[in-house]
Amino acid sequence: MTDHVDTAWAPAGEARDGHRPIPASSAWRPGDHPGQRRFAHVGVIPLEGDPRGELDVTLAYETWGELNEARDNAVYVAHAFTGDSHVVGAAGPGHLTGGWWEDLVGPGKVIDTDRYFVVSANVVGGCQGSTGPAHPHPEDGRPWGSSFPYVTLHDQVVAEARLADLLGVDVWALVIGPSMGGMRAVEWAATFPERVRAIGAIGTTAATTADQISWHAAQAAAIRLDPGFHGGDYYDRPDGEGPHHGLGLARVIAHTTYRSAPELNERFGRSVQDGDPLRPEGFFAVESYLDHHADKLARRFDANAYLRMLHAINTHDVGRGRGGVEAALSRYEGEALVVAIDSDRLFPLSDAERLAGALPRAELVVLHSEIGHDGFLVPESGLNDAVAGLLDRVAVGAAA
Amino acid sequence: MTDHVDTAWAPAGEARDGHRPIPASSAWRPGDHPGQRRFAHVGVIPLEGDPRGELDVTLAYETWGELNEARDNAVYVAHAFTGDSHVVGAAGPGHLTGGWWEDLVGPGKVIDTDRYFVVSANVVGGCQGSTGPAHPHPEDGRPWGSSFPYVTLHDQVVAEARLADLLGVDVWALVIGPSMGGMRAVEWAATFPERVRAIGAIGTTAATTADQISWHAAQAAAIRLDPGFHGGDYYDRPDGEGPHHGLGLARVIAHTTYRSAPELNERFGRSVQDGDPLRPEGFFAVESYLDHHADKLARRFDANAYLRMLHAINTHDVGRGRGGVEAALSRYEGEALVVAIDSDRLFPLSDAERLAGALPRAELVVLHSEIGHDGFLVPESGLNDAVAGLLDRVAVGAAA
Repeated sequence: MTDHVDTAWAPAGEARDGHRPIPASSAWRPGDHPGQRRFAHVGVIPLEGDPRGELDVTLAYETWGELNEARDNAVYVAHAFTGDSHVVGAAGPGHLTGGWWEDLVGPGKVIDTDRYFVVSANVVGGCQGSTGPAHPHPEDGRPWGSSFPYVTLHDQVVAEARLADLLGVDVWALVIGPSMGGMRAVEWAATFPERVRAIGAIGTTAATTADQISWHAAQAAAIRLDPGFHGGDYYDRPDGEGPHHGLGLARVIAHTTYRSAPELNERFGRSVQDGDPLRPEGFFAVESYLDHHADKLARRFDANAYLRMLHAINTHDVGRGRGGVEAALSRYEGEALVVAIDSDRLFPLSDAERLAGALPRAELVVLHSEIGHDGFLVPESGLNDAVAGLLDRVAVGAAA
Repeated sequence: MTDHVDTAWAPAGEARDGHRPIPASSAWRPGDHPGQRRFAHVGVIPLEGDPRGELDVTLAYETWGELNEARDNAVYVAHAFTGDSHVVGAAGPGHLTGGWWEDLVGPGKVIDTDRYFVVSANVVGGCQGSTGPAHPHPEDGRPWGSSFPYVTLHDQVVAEARLADLLGVDVWALVIGPSMGGMRAVEWAATFPERVRAIGAIGTTAATTADQISWHAAQAAAIRLDPGFHGGDYYDRPDGEGPHHGLGLARVIAHTTYRSAPELNERFGRSVQDGDPLRPEGFFAVESYLDHHADKLARRFDANAYLRMLHAINTHDVGRGRGGVEAALSRYEGEALVVAIDSDRLFPLSDAERLAGALPRAELVVLHSEIGHDGFLVPESGLNDAVAGLLDRVAVGAAA
């Protein structure tokens, strides 16, 4: 019943406490190997919610392909919560994981990097190279930690627009992303409607719901409960291993919301990891699977960044200060593809229906998947065809 | 949008850190006011899973009504996870909460205590008076804590059968319960099929699923992450306040699974507790609501008992050692009522269908409720009519 990928992993406990220690933070920090990242100082951006009101921002980003002379072939890929700018490419120095959307993006793919100029930046407040809580504070050079502002998705999109300016992209042919990336695509449509010809919003919502906020509340509490969190100032402590247990627990909660119950039941059932079916905790195969995902995230993410992302998602309401969701999106005249996954229990179809209903020119596509929210990463779900159709409608693609 | 019950409560943070300290454990302990409890020393019971193999057990229980001469009017009410024996009655000394099933049980109610002899015992391993981790170890008189065995639902049912012996109940007219209580009703049918004329299994399952185990894994990890847990030996520490933050977080996760997403969304939406919609965490009304439930549970439960209950539920598989669920239940010739709540996302309809399919004489009733799993507590859901029908079928009720 269990997947071959997971059975290779150590049983619960060992996976977390194994021989390879987990660092206090797995954030990329200035001085680390840049990998494929480039860096753009986009300057001081205003902050919606932070009392300090502004933040000096550098974005770490990656690009593929070339901007054509008409400058009409640029596509922005907005990464999800724990995602990053490494949309395409191998894992290696500077990149802990390989490209996460290579089924959709690359040479000869639907978002064809031989035709399109593809850009993806790491979000402000994250941990993959853009200005974030693990970075040195400009005044004392020590990590921001607890003092890093709680940015919003709107703040992040404002920074992304500054990057577009620097890259010479006046108008994106397409801004597309899954989950939190889809929220930013929607925020782009509301904030800069004249700068986007099409958006692709996958497994996402126009305004985060109480149910989603509930799951996020548990994740934030898990991080803060970890004695290694130290209020957010856990970097470079000689006595601390960081809040990786809390971060891991946050991931366990999140990961369960990302998968469907039928998929978990079908895949793991009541299978056990060893011969003792009544041992307390940690013996069910599904527990080992979740523990593996906890461990994996703790080795590639940063707890303060995780809290900033939760906040950005929780405060996501494209209608805030704009007279509501419908009013906010009515000004957007571009094309829109809204994709729901039928088994998604975190972002249910009703969220996609509301979003599509508020966008003047939206196509709503419901993908079939057993997996749940994570189903957007599965190529055979039909996502690629839907995106190809969207690109056809905006008639992008003059060769570079 | 918010419910009047919740708006009376302090905002998040204050609810947990308010002026009334939370004890290290809210377990009932020997010497505390007994309330309506009686106590029965049921003796040494075998333990399925613990290497020590046995446990000397005293059960704390309550009764209502009288056993009739024919001794055929006894009803056993099996409480849920964090429930207790106080099915009927006011809160007061010894009882932190009022009767939890007064809509169904009491004088003139469907389970009429003027006709039936109703019994409910607190489970072994719990924290409401029966032998449990907060109780003194028989050898040194200090709390069991971490050394308390991980009991199973089968162990609990064996202890309940001993209590039935002592009370002169050879055969229950009905064993009924919600959630974990329903699991024990099912376990009764498999372990003592000749001693039960009817079971009522509400919002429950024949064998706990991978999805349910996943939610439980997060809850167990939350308790263990709390630095106040001290490996389970947190009782009576001069330096410790107990793992109530971890226990509270476990409750936040659990409570979210107990409610439906549409109910949370309808009830709370994106309402905020104060005027600042971009404050980091703790400002959404739904967060305050969850925090209130965290606080409430920490004031009435014990973290070690919570872990024992998780284990008992996770290891629940009525077919274990019996050739599977269907074989285990095929020997039971009594009546069965299996109730699903249509909005229950923790114990979905498919679980009830499987359970009803395995019981030779089962009626499956699907209740409509917006609430989710917790919907079994709502009287207008139709539960009372379904139970009344079940009691009619077993023709119980000669006057005492």
